[in-house]
Amino acid sequence: MKDHKDYLKEAIEMAAENVRKNLGGPFGALIVLDGKIIGRGVNRVTYHNDPTAHAEIVAIREACKNLQNFRLDNAIIYTSCEPCPMCLGALYWARISKIIFAASNQDAAEAGFDDSFIYEEIPLPLEKRSIPISKLEIPDYFKPFETWTEMEGKIEY
Amino acid sequence: MKDHKDYLKEAIEMAAENVRKNLGGPFGALIVLDGKIIGRGVNRVTYHNDPTAHAEIVAIREACKNLQNFRLDNAIIYTSCEPCPMCLGALYWARISKIIFAASNQDAAEAGFDDSFIYEEIPLPLEKRSIPISKLEIPDYFKPFETWTEMEGKIEY
Repeated sequence: MKDHKDYLKEAIEMAAENVRKNLGGPFGALIVLDGKIIGRGVNRVTYHNDPTAHAEIVAIREACKNLQNFRLDNAIIYTSCEPCPMCLGALYWARISKIIFAASNQDAAEAGFDDSFIYEEIPLPLEKRSIPISKLEIPDYFKPFETWTEMEGKIEY
Repeated sequence: MKDHKDYLKEAIEMAAENVRKNLGGPFGALIVLDGKIIGRGVNRVTYHNDPTAHAEIVAIREACKNLQNFRLDNAIIYTSCEPCPMCLGALYWARISKIIFAASNQDAAEAGFDDSFIYEEIPLPLEKRSIPISKLEIPDYFKPFETWTEMEGKIEY
């Protein structure tokens, strides 16, 4: 039976291998449910021209596809590095049960991968954010939710 | 020439249409660069069993694919609803230039889509988070970054 360290070591090895193959950034993650690996991911941002293709997101998408479920209840993610806010948000939406990481955000920053800026931005009120964000008043703003509320047979999530 | 309201109205219409077709949640987004729509997205969480398939993420991925670039400099996203932390993080990584939304997070919460919990969790220190998250001490934790630093010909991002 593999333990936490074995899985984390594997995620680290995937991350290093991804760099050696020149397929993306130095990040790897795997998701385990009931002692079985159900999803793996390595950073594919540059390779797929997809800024959302962080290791954790890739692993979540694969695990959910394998389970045919948009929730990962009771699963654990092992990731070579502490998740950024995007990945952390994704892990919350996926209802992951536990997150175990090797390198901290500070370690990543030391290597040139600094996400502290985004961590600082997210809690700010809209008017203090660096990227301009604004609500535009528009009559139909609530229509999608209204349609949702009235819709019968919808799949809740 | 379309203005902000026209694009936002279209995103709202996409969101409502997505519900009517029973293909996912009541959210739509589109990305515009130089007066041209380069990416569209609607919520596909349940349809694709992908908890990361929020409208903004889907739109970012499509826009980046179309541009063959992992950055969306100078592009504007119009989204039917204020982005959740995951999508906000993704928009920062994508270097979007501006975010314009219709419904606020409070409006979404009223309709049963509440992301305030995730907004509150992200700034917390690790030990205060609801989903257990921990750093596991492991000798090779810095190896992926070391490999990255030494790697020649890598694509920086």
